[in-house]
Amino acid sequence: MELSPINMPCDEREPDRPAQPGTFPSREADVSAQLPGERCVDFPVSVVLPAGGTGERTGLQTPKQFCSFLGRPLISYTIQAFERVSWIQTIVVAVAKENMDLMMDIVQRFQHRKVRVVPGGSTRHRSICNGVLALGEEEEVEERSSAGRPKVVIIHDAVRPFVEEDFLHKIAIAAKEQGAAGAIRPLVSTVIATTSEGYLDHSLERAKFRASEMPQGFTYEVIRQAYERCTESDFEFGTECLHLALQYCGTNAKLIEGPPTLWKVTYKRDLAAAESIVKETLSRSACVLTGGLTQAVALAEALQKAAAALEMELDVIPDLQGDHVRYLFGAWNFIQVSVSRDDLSEVETLLLALQAENRALLHPLVVILVHLSCSEELSISQRVAQPAAIMDLASKAKLQNILLYGIQLHQSKDGDLWERSVLKVAEIASALIRERSPALVGQLLQA
Amino acid sequence: MELSPINMPCDEREPDRPAQPGTFPSREADVSAQLPGERCVDFPVSVVLPAGGTGERTGLQTPKQFCSFLGRPLISYTIQAFERVSWIQTIVVAVAKENMDLMMDIVQRFQHRKVRVVPGGSTRHRSICNGVLALGEEEEVEERSSAGRPKVVIIHDAVRPFVEEDFLHKIAIAAKEQGAAGAIRPLVSTVIATTSEGYLDHSLERAKFRASEMPQGFTYEVIRQAYERCTESDFEFGTECLHLALQYCGTNAKLIEGPPTLWKVTYKRDLAAAESIVKETLSRSACVLTGGLTQAVALAEALQKAAAALEMELDVIPDLQGDHVRYLFGAWNFIQVSVSRDDLSEVETLLLALQAENRALLHPLVVILVHLSCSEELSISQRVAQPAAIMDLASKAKLQNILLYGIQLHQSKDGDLWERSVLKVAEIASALIRERSPALVGQLLQA
Repeated sequence: MELSPINMPCDEREPDRPAQPGTFPSREADVSAQLPGERCVDFPVSVVLPAGGTGERTGLQTPKQFCSFLGRPLISYTIQAFERVSWIQTIVVAVAKENMDLMMDIVQRFQHRKVRVVPGGSTRHRSICNGVLALGEEEEVEERSSAGRPKVVIIHDAVRPFVEEDFLHKIAIAAKEQGAAGAIRPLVSTVIATTSEGYLDHSLERAKFRASEMPQGFTYEVIRQAYERCTESDFEFGTECLHLALQYCGTNAKLIEGPPTLWKVTYKRDLAAAESIVKETLSRSACVLTGGLTQAVALAEALQKAAAALEMELDVIPDLQGDHVRYLFGAWNFIQVSVSRDDLSEVETLLLALQAENRALLHPLVVILVHLSCSEELSISQRVAQPAAIMDLASKAKLQNILLYGIQLHQSKDGDLWERSVLKVAEIASALIRERSPALVGQLLQA
Repeated sequence: MELSPINMPCDEREPDRPAQPGTFPSREADVSAQLPGERCVDFPVSVVLPAGGTGERTGLQTPKQFCSFLGRPLISYTIQAFERVSWIQTIVVAVAKENMDLMMDIVQRFQHRKVRVVPGGSTRHRSICNGVLALGEEEEVEERSSAGRPKVVIIHDAVRPFVEEDFLHKIAIAAKEQGAAGAIRPLVSTVIATTSEGYLDHSLERAKFRASEMPQGFTYEVIRQAYERCTESDFEFGTECLHLALQYCGTNAKLIEGPPTLWKVTYKRDLAAAESIVKETLSRSACVLTGGLTQAVALAEALQKAAAALEMELDVIPDLQGDHVRYLFGAWNFIQVSVSRDDLSEVETLLLALQAENRALLHPLVVILVHLSCSEELSISQRVAQPAAIMDLASKAKLQNILLYGIQLHQSKDGDLWERSVLKVAEIASALIRERSPALVGQLLQA
């Protein structure tokens, strides 16, 4: 059956997705290894994340930066995007006083190492200013940071989680050279001037204007002076740091076109979009463990082909020994193929290894037990005992942010039947990995 | 265990979601009934949807308007948003010649009744102009439309699927009165002017400017004249219809602030956002069928409470007889509670009724069989026979866009155990309804 174009998903790799999302330190590490020195920044750079919003203005119960997807608040994703960058020293997060405890809790829970939490102000500029001043005190705060006062301060929004290292690098270098630098994007809509009565006055020539986005970078001196010199009115009503640098320091910022990944989480729909980006990136590949048994290897290789058609890459390995230990540290999805009857020991070993490494700290891991039953007839104990054991194991693993599911298929000598079963295992596994549903853990699904 | 704020999802009903999404004709019908005459438009209004993009410009294989989610292309959602509005007569869709067949196929497949497909032009303005001219021919096209030439033409983007009737109403009325009207939104970013060397020149005062969005409305005369009088350069490089009306007809458009739902699907992440909005709206409630049996009613009522805590509303009814037949036409999710052993006849009857009404034409329906087994010990036949029968039924239902799943739970006299089982059924049902995963149909899940 041919796929009709109507059913074609929008499956192109597009520019709004991070190629190396900030959320994936292990992959990022690989890339750095390939490009030695290319991103080297030889001056101190720190970051200020204004996150002082309390949601009051928008009438929300939870301010956007503290809203969660996949079990983690948005601001933690953003922090991580900076934390993984080796040349960034301190990340100052300015939050409203009533959210200080919540923020400290997030820092501790997700083990953020470079973060300093300071009280925000009543407006965006006041929060940023507090963050900048806190960086100035770094010298005094001994042992807190070896960095001292930074040369360049990068300012970013807590609600833009997908900023990438290479763009941060551009901003930092340009800020050092020019005093100030900022991300811009083409305008997505025509900008129009309105009359006071609500009629069209004129429309702007789109090519001459740009949207000012984040991140922005400043030398420490420029941003500190800008805040020292600006007025109460600027603090109260202003929103644009580049404007302050121009007006109070005479610094014309260098403008750099950023990627669409810089987009800002504004509406609830944007949280769904952010979740889908993270889920998709987590779901591109999985590691299949066979134990080296012939039957299991044959099934794993058949699964590999079927999954490729579903745009998921499977790496088939016997176990996590030797060189393959890298999967223990890098993979987000594991498929354990089992041909023995009631034996969950392989999957238990895998779960223990993952827990020992605290691998599911930042993202839920998926572990799928694919159980190949070879006898044509099932014993009753097999049908009843194993599901209960898997459910039990899954309940415990879930507490560690590991999502365990089971899929059962029957060995068949009928080639067509077998092929259909394998395809079904691949479809179910792919769906489980993409959806990462906590409600379905422990289920033993039938292929 | 208390929910920590970290885990709090962003659960507020927000303004980027349609209260009455265009995708839900039955609900919309209810609302119209409540507000008789309020939205009455007593002059002919038709719509032009420029959808001529071939994806070439963005390098995509599939142009955005033809990308699908939940089995239906984006443009069909947009068409439906207009089609359900009683006072809109014709929807002219202008598509590139190479996509004419695809578009006709979509119209036929999703049974769009008000659509006329015309060839688009090489630019946005040329496509809109073709659409407007096609509306002018309406008089000549006998029997095609009883409407004749429209008084007002609404122009909209094929990739803004969530436009609502009350806003269309405002645009239509203002267009008739003023000659032209358009949706505006506050600017989301500071707009800045750049020097030719890529430095900041100045930033615009945000309060004085607005983003021009869609829909826009024009009297037929104004939009036709604007296109008759404009230049080749306008056709080639222009993007703003309001600008043409001002320049060539002297018509200052009335600008009306639109809701955030007018947002445009631009990136792949936006498709995920659109999908999440539709999924969420489809998942707010479900209809529980008990057959009237005491045990089933008790379970259904317990489920109702558990689901309420998961923010899903369950309506418990015995069957679809009498007044309850309205659920057959309005609900998107059905939970059939069954206490009999191997009997799938109730769910089969439900599936037949849904198929007879072609209820899953526009959205996949979810049907969940909740099977309450009352004997403590299970017979072998029960464990083996029923799963196969459910899988078989599910495979057939899937062909009709109905997603059938099973959940099994055991009656227990232990109050705590029973409560946990009921909660688990609610969690699993809620996850199945929200995720609408085709890969998991036919599974018999354990609570």
